[in-house]
Amino acid sequence: MPGPPPALAAARVAVRRWLGGSDLADGALVLVACSGGADSLALAAAVGFVAPREGYAVAAVTVDHGLQPGSADAAREAADRCRALLPGGSPVEVVQVAVPASGAGPEADARAARYAALQDTARRLGAAAVLLGHTRDDQAEQVLLGLARGSGTRSLAGMPARRPLGEGRLLGRPLLALTRQQTSDVCAELGLAPFRDPHNEDRRYARVRARQALALLEGDLGPGLTGNLARSADLLRDDADALDALADAAYLDLGEQPWAVPALTALPRAVRTRLWRRLALEQGSPGTDLTGEHLRSVDALVTAWRGQGPLPLPGGVRAARTGEGVQVRGEA
Amino acid sequence: MPGPPPALAAARVAVRRWLGGSDLADGALVLVACSGGADSLALAAAVGFVAPREGYAVAAVTVDHGLQPGSADAAREAADRCRALLPGGSPVEVVQVAVPASGAGPEADARAARYAALQDTARRLGAAAVLLGHTRDDQAEQVLLGLARGSGTRSLAGMPARRPLGEGRLLGRPLLALTRQQTSDVCAELGLAPFRDPHNEDRRYARVRARQALALLEGDLGPGLTGNLARSADLLRDDADALDALADAAYLDLGEQPWAVPALTALPRAVRTRLWRRLALEQGSPGTDLTGEHLRSVDALVTAWRGQGPLPLPGGVRAARTGEGVQVRGEA
Repeated sequence: MPGPPPALAAARVAVRRWLGGSDLADGALVLVACSGGADSLALAAAVGFVAPREGYAVAAVTVDHGLQPGSADAAREAADRCRALLPGGSPVEVVQVAVPASGAGPEADARAARYAALQDTARRLGAAAVLLGHTRDDQAEQVLLGLARGSGTRSLAGMPARRPLGEGRLLGRPLLALTRQQTSDVCAELGLAPFRDPHNEDRRYARVRARQALALLEGDLGPGLTGNLARSADLLRDDADALDALADAAYLDLGEQPWAVPALTALPRAVRTRLWRRLALEQGSPGTDLTGEHLRSVDALVTAWRGQGPLPLPGGVRAARTGEGVQVRGEA
Repeated sequence: MPGPPPALAAARVAVRRWLGGSDLADGALVLVACSGGADSLALAAAVGFVAPREGYAVAAVTVDHGLQPGSADAAREAADRCRALLPGGSPVEVVQVAVPASGAGPEADARAARYAALQDTARRLGAAAVLLGHTRDDQAEQVLLGLARGSGTRSLAGMPARRPLGEGRLLGRPLLALTRQQTSDVCAELGLAPFRDPHNEDRRYARVRARQALALLEGDLGPGLTGNLARSADLLRDDADALDALADAAYLDLGEQPWAVPALTALPRAVRTRLWRRLALEQGSPGTDLTGEHLRSVDALVTAWRGQGPLPLPGGVRAARTGEGVQVRGEA
C-alpha cells in the first residue's frame, strides 16, 4: 500500500504534531478557518484526515468579508470544497462579517473582523481550537513587515504556532513549518483547485508588497531566506516570551505607582521599556501612537535625570518623576 | 557668523554626543579608522574639529588590505586626506595587513585582519578608543544580513555605538544615527572627494547585495525602511543585552556541571539556549558549525526527556542527561 503523496504526508505530520502538543480534551472540536485558498484547503484536508483518528471532531468556517462583488458565492464555494475534505456530517458554515473602517487600515480592519467572527463561531459550535493555514512564507512576510515598521522583538517574532484566543480556546497554526508551495502541492495531489484571492496580487496591500519583496530578496541574499526569516522569528519569540515574563513579574513586584527609582534602575532597560509601554497603554495611550521615542523619553526619567518636567504621552497621559519615584498617569 | 553647513553640523553633534557618553579620560587619544570613503572622511572631519575642543587628542590610521593593485597608493592618499582634517601634528599612519584565507569567506577574513590591525595601532599609539564611520545604512544592511542567515536577537541587533575592544579600549561608531547620504553631504560641504571602493559595487559580496536589496525594498515597503531596520536593531540590542546578562548570572548560579534539571527548568528557554551555546563553545564546538537545531536538541534533554542518549555536537562535544543533571562535555 503506497503512503500518501509527499506534501499531503507533510501536512498530516504537521497537524498530528500540533494536536499532540496542544493538550486538547478527548473528543474536543477543532474549527478550521477555510478561505478556500491553497493553504486552508491543505489544512482542511490534513485536519479532516488526522483529527478523527486522534479522537477529535472537526468543523470548518468560511468568513465572507463582503468586500468584493460575488464574495458570498465565493465563500459558499470555499465552504463546499472544505466540506468535501472533512468527515461526513462535520459542521461547515459561512459567516458574513461587516468590516468597519476603524482608521487602522483595510488589512487590519478585515483581520479584526475575521478574528472576531472566528471566535464567535468557535463559541457557538463549542470548538476548543481555531486552526489557521499560515505557512512559513506568511511567517517570513510577517517578519519583514515588522522590520519595515521598525518593530521590536515581539513583533519580529511573527506568529506563534499556538496562542490563547480567550475563553479557554486556542488559536493554532499547524502549517507554519510548511512552505506555501507545499500547500499548493497538497491541492494538486488531491486534485483540488484552490481559490485565488485577487487581493493576493493587489500591491495596495503591504503584505502583497512584502511577498514580492521577499521573492526579490531570495535572489539577492540566497534561496534560504524565507526559511531563515522564519527561523529568526522562532528565536526572537523565545526572547520576547522571556522578557515579557520578566516584565510581568517586575510589574507585580513594583506594585502601586509611583515606582521607586532604585528598583527601576536594577531592571534591564529592555524590561523597563516594556513596563513603560504597559503603563502608558493602561493609562489610555493609544498603542498605535506610542513610539519607541516616547518610551525612551520616559526611561530617561530614570537613567538621565536632570530635573526634566512631566512628559506628555499620546492620549493625554503624562510621565513624571517625583523625587525618587516615577509615575505614568492619564488625565484625571 | 553662519554655523557649519547642515550635514557637517549633524556629524559634529553625533561625535560630541559619542564622546560625552564614553567616559574617556581627559586628554585621551581617539583613533579614527579612515578608508578614505565618504563615511570615514566625514568622521575624521567631525572628530578633527570636536575632539580637541572637548580635550581629546586625535590620530588616524588607514588600513591597506593589499587586495587590489595600487592599494598602497590609495591608502596613502586616504591617509593624506584624513591628515588634512585633523589638528596639525596628529599622528596619521598607513598600516599594511595580510589577509589570510581562513575559510570564513573573504569579507570575514578582511574584517578580522582589519580589526587586528586597528587594535594593534591603537596599542602602539596609546589610543583609548578606535572610531569607525559606520552609518545607519550600514546598520540596516547588517540587520538584513543577519535575517538572511536566520540569526537570533544578538545578531539582528546589529552594531553597537560602543563596545569594549579589549585592553580597556573602546570601539566606537559615532555616526550610526547619520545616513550614508549625510556623510557624502559632509564631503561635498567641505569640498572633499571621497574614495569610491570598487568592492562597494561587487555583487560577490553579501554586503553589496544587501545594500542593493535594501534599495529595492525601500520601494516596496516604504522609504522609512532603512531607518526602521536600524530602529529595530536598537530595540533588539536592549533585549539581547538583558538576556545575555541573565544568562551570565545563571551561568554563575549553576556552578559546576552537571547542571540540575529543576534549576534549568526554572529558567526561560531563551536563557537556557544561551547557556547551551556558551557551554558548547567553551567545550570546543566551533561557533560556525553550531546551529539552533543543535541547541534545541540539547534543550530537549530538559524539556522533553524520554531517555534519549548523548547528543553529538560539532567539534566532538557531547551533551547528555545523567539522572537529574545535564552536562555538555568535549572529548577528554
